Amino acid sequence: MNPQVGIIMGSQSDLPIMAEAAQMLEEFGVNYELTVVSAHRTPQRMIDYAQSARERGIKVIVAGAGGAAHLPGMVASMTSLPVIGVPIKSSNSIDGWDSILSILQMPAGIPVAAVALNGGKNAGILAASIVGSFDAKVAESLDVYKKTLKEKVEESAALLEAKGWKEILKK
Amino acid sequence: MNPQVGIIMGSQSDLPIMAEAAQMLEEFGVNYELTVVSAHRTPQRMIDYAQSARERGIKVIVAGAGGAAHLPGMVASMTSLPVIGVPIKSSNSIDGWDSILSILQMPAGIPVAAVALNGGKNAGILAASIVGSFDAKVAESLDVYKKTLKEKVEESAALLEAKGWKEILKK
Amino acid sequence: MNPQVGIIMGSQSDLPIMAEAAQMLEEFGVNYELTVVSAHRTPQRMIDYAQSARERGIKVIVAGAGGAAHLPGMVASMTSLPVIGVPIKSSNSIDGWDSILSILQMPAGIPVAAVALNGGKNAGILAASIVGSFDAKVAESLDVYKKTLKEKVEESAALLEAKGWKEILKK
Amino acid sequence: MNPQVGIIMGSQSDLPIMAEAAQMLEEFGVNYELTVVSAHRTPQRMIDYAQSARERGIKVIVAGAGGAAHLPGMVASMTSLPVIGVPIKSSNSIDGWDSILSILQMPAGIPVAAVALNGGKNAGILAASIVGSFDAKVAESLDVYKKTLKEKVEESAALLEAKGWKEILKK
Amino acid sequence: MNPQVGIIMGSQSDLPIMAEAAQMLEEFGVNYELTVVSAHRTPQRMIDYAQSARERGIKVIVAGAGGAAHLPGMVASMTSLPVIGVPIKSSNSIDGWDSILSILQMPAGIPVAAVALNGGKNAGILAASIVGSFDAKVAESLDVYKKTLKEKVEESAALLEAKGWKEILKK
Amino acid sequence: MNPQVGIIMGSQSDLPIMAEAAQMLEEFGVNYELTVVSAHRTPQRMIDYAQSARERGIKVIVAGAGGAAHLPGMVASMTSLPVIGVPIKSSNSIDGWDSILSILQMPAGIPVAAVALNGGKNAGILAASIVGSFDAKVAESLDVYKKTLKEKVEESAALLEAKGWKEILKK
Amino acid sequence: MNPQVGIIMGSQSDLPIMAEAAQMLEEFGVNYELTVVSAHRTPQRMIDYAQSARERGIKVIVAGAGGAAHLPGMVASMTSLPVIGVPIKSSNSIDGWDSILSILQMPAGIPVAAVALNGGKNAGILAASIVGSFDAKVAESLDVYKKTLKEKVEESAALLEAKGWKEILKK
Amino acid sequence: MNPQVGIIMGSQSDLPIMAEAAQMLEEFGVNYELTVVSAHRTPQRMIDYAQSARERGIKVIVAGAGGAAHLPGMVASMTSLPVIGVPIKSSNSIDGWDSILSILQMPAGIPVAAVALNGGKNAGILAASIVGSFDAKVAESLDVYKKTLKEKVEESAALLEAKGWKEILKK
Repeated sequence: MNPQVGIIMGSQSDLPIMAEAAQMLEEFGVNYELTVVSAHRTPQRMIDYAQSARERGIKVIVAGAGGAAHLPGMVASMTSLPVIGVPIKSSNSIDGWDSILSILQMPAGIPVAAVALNGGKNAGILAASIVGSFDAKVAESLDVYKKTLKEKVEESAALLEAKGWKEILKK
Repeated sequence: MNPQVGIIMGSQSDLPIMAEAAQMLEEFGVNYELTVVSAHRTPQRMIDYAQSARERGIKVIVAGAGGAAHLPGMVASMTSLPVIGVPIKSSNSIDGWDSILSILQMPAGIPVAAVALNGGKNAGILAASIVGSFDAKVAESLDVYKKTLKEKVEESAALLEAKGWKEILKK
Repeated sequence: MNPQVGIIMGSQSDLPIMAEAAQMLEEFGVNYELTVVSAHRTPQRMIDYAQSARERGIKVIVAGAGGAAHLPGMVASMTSLPVIGVPIKSSNSIDGWDSILSILQMPAGIPVAAVALNGGKNAGILAASIVGSFDAKVAESLDVYKKTLKEKVEESAALLEAKGWKEILKK
Repeated sequence: MNPQVGIIMGSQSDLPIMAEAAQMLEEFGVNYELTVVSAHRTPQRMIDYAQSARERGIKVIVAGAGGAAHLPGMVASMTSLPVIGVPIKSSNSIDGWDSILSILQMPAGIPVAAVALNGGKNAGILAASIVGSFDAKVAESLDVYKKTLKEKVEESAALLEAKGWKEILKK
Repeated sequence: MNPQVGIIMGSQSDLPIMAEAAQMLEEFGVNYELTVVSAHRTPQRMIDYAQSARERGIKVIVAGAGGAAHLPGMVASMTSLPVIGVPIKSSNSIDGWDSILSILQMPAGIPVAAVALNGGKNAGILAASIVGSFDAKVAESLDVYKKTLKEKVEESAALLEAKGWKEILKK
Repeated sequence: MNPQVGIIMGSQSDLPIMAEAAQMLEEFGVNYELTVVSAHRTPQRMIDYAQSARERGIKVIVAGAGGAAHLPGMVASMTSLPVIGVPIKSSNSIDGWDSILSILQMPAGIPVAAVALNGGKNAGILAASIVGSFDAKVAESLDVYKKTLKEKVEESAALLEAKGWKEILKK
Repeated sequence: MNPQVGIIMGSQSDLPIMAEAAQMLEEFGVNYELTVVSAHRTPQRMIDYAQSARERGIKVIVAGAGGAAHLPGMVASMTSLPVIGVPIKSSNSIDGWDSILSILQMPAGIPVAAVALNGGKNAGILAASIVGSFDAKVAESLDVYKKTLKEKVEESAALLEAKGWKEILKK
Repeated sequence: MNPQVGIIMGSQSDLPIMAEAAQMLEEFGVNYELTVVSAHRTPQRMIDYAQSARERGIKVIVAGAGGAAHLPGMVASMTSLPVIGVPIKSSNSIDGWDSILSILQMPAGIPVAAVALNGGKNAGILAASIVGSFDAKVAESLDVYKKTLKEKVEESAALLEAKGWKEILKK
C-alpha cells in the first residue's frame, strides 16, 4: 500500500525528532515515506514534493524545521493537503521561539497545523488521527494507544501510592 | 448530511473569531456544527461533547479558547479525532502568549493542531483540508480557493505596477 | 487523621519537585496524600479526584504539571476547594513559560493559586498556611519556620562579616 | 463579624481591579476590609498591616500591585497567613510581565499565591475558597456560583445553537 | 536606466511601510521597481521573481512581510543577490516577534539582511548604501543625507536650549 | 551655580519623558542642563558632550533613548561620570524590550544605571539622590519628598476607608 | 575611613556575583562593607540596614537579588541614598527576566539603578563613579581603569592582526 | 588587492563566531581585513575605523558584538557603507535577545543589516553577495556555493531514503 503520510525535514540533523513521528505511524499501522527536503537549500525539490504529494496518494504531510522554519508553510502554500509543522529547536535557536513563530503564525488563507516544540511524536499521532478520521482501523489503534497511556499512569500512580514517594525517589 | 466538523469555543465572546472557521467551511461545502463548550465552566458538557463526537459522525473538532486555554487539549485527551486549537487573544491576555502556549505545548501523546493567534479562518481551512484528504470534491474546492488567493494577489500587483504606489497610497 | 492536602502531579517525572511540597507539609505537621493524576492521559481519574476531594476531607489541592499544564485549572473547574498550581519546567519546555501561563492565566471565575516555576516547596508552605489560617498549631509551626529562615540568614551574614568574602569564596 | 479577608493595593489607581475581589467576597458572604498600602511609599504601614493581620482575625490577605510589584511578597515575608498576589498592568508596564514575575517568582520559603494579570475577581474567589475550606456555608455559596457559571454557558450555547451564529453576530 | 533595487511585499496592505523604502531610493537617485509578491499565495510568481532578478539588472532585493514572514528568506534561497528583509507588524502579530524571527533567524548558508520592525525607510537606505558601495554618486547622496540628519538634530537642540523645555512642551 | 546634572535625549520626541527628570531636579533644587544629543545622527556632538561633561562641572548624566538605544552606553564609554539611562518606548518599539536591553545589558567595565521604561521621573530622582549623597540640602529635599509620597498614600487610604470603594469608584 | 559603599545581597549564594563589586571598589580605593540582608527572610534587618545607612556614612548601596528580587527596591523605599540593583539569575529563574523586571520596573517616586544581569562588576564600577563624582582621586582611578580597558583591546587587536585569526583560534 | 570587507568584533572572545565570516569570504575569493574594535572600550578607535573605511577601499563592514551591542549601529552612524551586524550571545546574555534587539532595532535613518544570532557565517555570505552584486566572479562563486548546498541535501536525502531512518539513527 502507498504511503499515506509524507514526513519531511529541513535537514538530516532533524531526524531524531522526526523519526518519532515515523515510529508512531508504524505503531498505528499507517504507511509513510520519510526524506529530507530543505526549503532554503532545495527550493525546487520542495516545490516538486508539495505539488506531487496528493497525486502520489499522500493524505497528510508532516514537515519539521528549525530556526526561520519556512518548510511547513511553504509546502502548505503549494498543496491543499493538511500540513503538520514541527518546530525544531536548532543549535542557535532563541529558545525555540523562532521556529515556533515561523510555523504557527501563518497568514490567513494558508494554514499549518503546529505541534509543540520538538513534538515529532505528537505530529505522528496527529497525522494518524487525521487518517483515522476516515479509517476505522487506525482509529481503533489510536483508542488502544490512549488506553495504554491511561493504564501506564494508573500503574505509576498505584506504585507511588503503595511505596510512598520517599521509596520511589530513592531509586 | 451530518456535520463533519464540530466547532466549539470557550465563550460566546470568541464567536467573531470562530465564525470565520464556519464561514470557510461553508465556502468549501463542508457541514459543521457550532456551539459554546467551556472547559472550566462546563467540564461535563466538554466531556460529553468530546466523547460522543466520533459516533455522531464528526471528523475534525475545531476548538477556540483564550487565556489559560485548556479546551482544545482537554477535548483532545478524550477523543482520538484530530483537534484543531485556535488561540484567542482574550481581554487580559499577555499578548496572546498564554493561549498560544496553553494550546501548542501539549505533552507527548496528546496532540493538538495549533493555528495562528485568532486564526479562526485558518482553522476552518485546515479542517476542510483534513476532510478534503478523503473527499475529492472538498479538495477541489480548496484548490479553487488557492487559485483565487493567487489571482487576487496578481490583480493587486498588476494594479500597483500600473498605477504606481503614490497613486495607490493616495486613496 | 485524614489527609488535609492532596498533592497530585501530571506525571511521575514531576515527583522530585512535588515531593518538596510533601516534605514541607510533614515539617508543619499537616497530613497529605500524594499521587499521579494526568489531565490528558487519565481525564476520568482527574474528574473523580477533583469531585471527591472535599468530601474526603481535603482542604487544599496542590497540582503540579509541565508544558501545556491543564491539571491545576481543570481540577479547579471541578471543585470549589483552593487549588495551588505548580508550573514545572518539562524537558521540551519553552523556558517554563508554557506551564507558567497555562496555570496562571485562568479565566475569571475559576482561580488557581500559582507559585514559582518548579516551586514545589513554596506550594507546600502555601498549603500549610491555608490550613494554618484555621489551625493555630500549624500557624505556630509556620512562625517557627519563618524564624528559622531568619536565623539562618543572620548566621550566614555574621559568618560573612566575620571572615570576609575572600575567605568565604575560597572554600 | 470581623473581616476575614484583607484586601490591599499599592495605589488607589488599582482600585477598579481590586474592587472585583471585594465584590466577589460580598457575593459569597465573606467579610473583608479594603485599603491602600504601598510597599514603596508606606513601608512602615505595610509592616504594621502584615504583622497585625492574623491577630485582627484576618484569614487571607489579597494584595494587588503593578510594575515591580513588591507588596504581595513583602507582606508574605511578614506574616504566615496565605497571601494572594494580583499582578496589575500599570501604565508603563511591559505587557504585565513585570508585575507577574515580581509576584510569581518568590524565593523558596516565602510563597505568594499568584492569580492572572488583573485577576482581581479570581483573587476574591480564591480567598473565598480558602475561607470555604473551613466554612461550609461559604463553600456552598461557591458551589452555587460554579453552578451559575455553568448555567450561563449552557444558556448561551442553547441560544447560539437555536439562532445560529449569523443571527447572533448581527446584533 | 533599469531598476537596481527590487522592492516586493507579501500583501498590498504592507504598502505604507514599503513605500518608505521607495521614497528613500528616490531621494538617493536609485532606480527601483515595486510590486506585490506573496510567498504563500503566489509561490510560482515568487520563484520567477527571485530567479530572474539578477539578469534583469537588479542589485538588491528588498522584501517585506508580516506574521510567519517567509518571503525574504525564500527569495534569498533562490538568488545570490543580497536580500533585505523588512519585518512588518501584521494585524494578528504577536508584537512583531513572529515576522522578526521568521526573517532574522535564517539557517547558515542563506542570509537575509534584517532591518527593524516596520523599518521600510531603513531598508531603502540600506539598499542605497549597497548600491553606493560601488557608485560614488549614490554614496555622495548618502553622505548628504547623513549631514542633513545631523543638522536637523542640531537645530532641534539649539531651539530647545534657547527656548527651554517648558516653552517647547507647551506647543 | 553651574548645572550638576546633564539631561540629554536622542530625539526631541523624547522630551515629554525626559522633562519629568528636569521637573524633579527643580523640585530638589538641583541645577541641570537639558538638550538633544543623538548617538546615531550626531556622534561627534555626543563625543564632545561626554568628554567635556566632567570639566564643565557635571556630576551625573541622564540619557534617554528609544529603540536600539545606544546613547546612554556610548556616553558612559567616554566619561567616568555616572550615567543614568532612560529606556524610552519608541513608536516601532517591540514593547520597550529593545531600549531596555540596549541600555541595561552593558558589558562588564562600562556600567549604565538603568531605570524603568519611560522612567524620566525616576531618573531625575536618582540623579538628585546621587547629588544628595554629598549635599545635605538635596538629601533633605529627598527626605521631604519621600514623606510627601507617604502622606499622599495615607490620605488616599483614609479616604477610601472612610467612604468605601463603591463611593470612590462612582466618581 | 568609614565605608562609603554598602554591598548587600539576598543570599550568600549571590556572593560570587556580588564579590565582583567589592573587588572593583578595592581597585578604585573606595571603602565598602558587605553582608547578607534578605528582604523576605530578614525584613527587619533590611529595614534597619536601609534606615541607618546614611547616618553610618554610606553614600551608595549596592543590592543584589534573584527571582522576585525585592531587596533593591525595598531598600530604596527606606532611604534616599542612591541604590544600585544587581539582578541575579537564580537557579529556577526564568532566564533572568524575573530579577531584571523586579528591579528595573520600580514605580515613579522610588528609583533603583539597575545594571546588567549578574552585573556585580558593573555595579561596583557604578558605585565608584558615584563616589568619584565628588572625589577627584576616585575619578582619576576610574579614568586609569578606562585607559587600561582601552589598552587591553588595542593589544588584543594588534596581536590578532599580527598573527591572523587562524593562528589565534588554533590555541 | 585591498580588502573589500572589514570584519570587526567587540571582543576577541567573539572570534570563533566572526572567523566564520572570514572563512566564507575566503571561499568566495573576497579580500577582507579582521580586527577587534570595541565601541565601549575603544570608542576613538571605532570612530577612526568607521570614518576611514570607505577611503581605504572597504565596501562592506561586518560588525559582531554581544550584550548591549552598540558596535554595528555606532559604526553605521559614522559611515554610509553598508554595515552587517552579527548579534553574539555573550556569557550573561538574556538568551541573545539583548544583542539582537540592540542591533536590529536601529532608528529610522541609520540602518544596520542584522543576521541571525551567532550568524557569523551568514554575515560573510551576505557581505560576499553585496560584493557580488557588482562583481560577476564573486556572484558566480555564490551560485556554485548555493549549488553545493543543494547537492549536499540531495545526497543526504538519497542516503536516508536508501538506508531508512532506523539504519541512519543507529550510527
